[in-house]
Amino acid sequence: MTALERALADAEQAGIKRNWMQVGDLLIHYARFGRGRPLLLLHGWPEFWLVWRPMMERLGDQFDLIAPDLRGFGDTGKPSSEPDPTATADRHADDMLGLIDGLGLRRFGLVGGDVGAYVMQAISHRAPERLAGAFYFSTPYPGMGARTAAPGRLTEVWYQYFQQLPWAAQLVGTTRQSCHLYLQYFLTRWSGDNPAVFADMLDVYTGNYMKPGNLQGGFDWYLSAGPARRAAQEGTLPKRPPITVPSRMLWGKRDPLFPIEWADRLGEYFADYSIDFVEAGHFVHAELPEQAAREVRAFFQSRQF
Amino acid sequence: MTALERALADAEQAGIKRNWMQVGDLLIHYARFGRGRPLLLLHGWPEFWLVWRPMMERLGDQFDLIAPDLRGFGDTGKPSSEPDPTATADRHADDMLGLIDGLGLRRFGLVGGDVGAYVMQAISHRAPERLAGAFYFSTPYPGMGARTAAPGRLTEVWYQYFQQLPWAAQLVGTTRQSCHLYLQYFLTRWSGDNPAVFADMLDVYTGNYMKPGNLQGGFDWYLSAGPARRAAQEGTLPKRPPITVPSRMLWGKRDPLFPIEWADRLGEYFADYSIDFVEAGHFVHAELPEQAAREVRAFFQSRQF
Repeated sequence: MTALERALADAEQAGIKRNWMQVGDLLIHYARFGRGRPLLLLHGWPEFWLVWRPMMERLGDQFDLIAPDLRGFGDTGKPSSEPDPTATADRHADDMLGLIDGLGLRRFGLVGGDVGAYVMQAISHRAPERLAGAFYFSTPYPGMGARTAAPGRLTEVWYQYFQQLPWAAQLVGTTRQSCHLYLQYFLTRWSGDNPAVFADMLDVYTGNYMKPGNLQGGFDWYLSAGPARRAAQEGTLPKRPPITVPSRMLWGKRDPLFPIEWADRLGEYFADYSIDFVEAGHFVHAELPEQAAREVRAFFQSRQF
Repeated sequence: MTALERALADAEQAGIKRNWMQVGDLLIHYARFGRGRPLLLLHGWPEFWLVWRPMMERLGDQFDLIAPDLRGFGDTGKPSSEPDPTATADRHADDMLGLIDGLGLRRFGLVGGDVGAYVMQAISHRAPERLAGAFYFSTPYPGMGARTAAPGRLTEVWYQYFQQLPWAAQLVGTTRQSCHLYLQYFLTRWSGDNPAVFADMLDVYTGNYMKPGNLQGGFDWYLSAGPARRAAQEGTLPKRPPITVPSRMLWGKRDPLFPIEWADRLGEYFADYSIDFVEAGHFVHAELPEQAAREVRAFFQSRQF
């Protein structure tokens, strides 16, 4: 039994159910736990649904927690065997709204970060009437602008460009060891250089990303998001009206990807938001699951859905 | 016999001699061919001395061609087993002047590109009285400025940042295949997407870079040059007086790294230069060896040394 298989069996043992649903061209895999008001949990890169297990177990008494693998990730399908430049935030939003519809749900809450945060913003623009609120751990947003590509930032963001190359997945996936080396770097560095956060999970993540197509599936995000990312950096991204969905951010003070100063323009993009800065890196939900769950509970307890 | 061993044996058969010289902390490997006025040929990344073979054979009737492996590259030493941030252009210049001194030479000419071009500029500032001239194929220079880090350029320059990471060499060197995949991309893309230029040499280059320490040795350049690169992008690099050494550039029109528009500020950095744009990519010396050799001959024939 591999580390991934053990982790999945263990999650099942804890009562987390896993299912698949066909939505358009995509077979979406999702995990589900608890009962109550529905929350859709959206992971980032290099994560997959399992990153939400600590949150699911803490919130299952009051919420119906639905944690899908995004298009290309985990056990969700990868419709293209080639690098796929069409997996944009809007397309992920379509997938997710299709999943929610297929589950027969109307109003729901969003929780997520990183890639998930882009998808949350796309859903917030598309279907604000469906959303009880949105809770962000790590919040990339267009207001970061040119700062993400400043000369001093390039040692942090190079992977966003490398991962657009058609041979990048082949290089990283040369062996289990090379994949492990690659993921370990990001999972450790982005956890504020705290190697303990994902220490027990490195083999699990490696197992997940070594599944056929999963490295490319994750890299497809960077290929697909590339044009919008560049437009945001160049200041040419068409400006949408601010998001009206009530939004809350917990922003890690030690996130090497998103310095806290970059929260300064959230008000231009979110009409109704609150933010707190916490003692964590990029993966607030994995680094501080207790505090994160408490905050998510408090935020959604006060909302109607 | 490996492809690399065959290529070296073949070069020896053609009369190219290989030698080593201890210069300070460094055992420098260099190849030598021909007789006449001395020209020091300085390779870039991901090259090594052998890239000069076509030029050496074409110019040996009139010149003493000396093609070293730079610190960390090829069969030259790598004094540190760890990533080494001290292999700056100035340090490479020290190494090269030490080699020339050790050979008992006084005045010489410089020919090179890419990393070699940085070293040539450092030598030109340090010891202009030693130089009969400098001939550049691909000319990175500080006047490129912020343009090298513009958002639209990041899919080209990501490797300059990735290669600064302490685990990058391990990832690329996971297997011969992964190293081959990596080098093939750069050698092909930078040859104006002409796969024929290095087609016969890919196994040779892979053999060279899979030698212990050679991937890291090359990556040390990016680690060492990082601060100056950032300063040039941010406009904070102290401006030196223009280089007075007579300089000539052949600039590839299809070089994906250095668009021809970026030649516009050469006059601020070179007091005495001429330039022509040619039908090539980044590796003018490898792509157009006949024309390149003819131009080098003409340039140095008219100089005193």
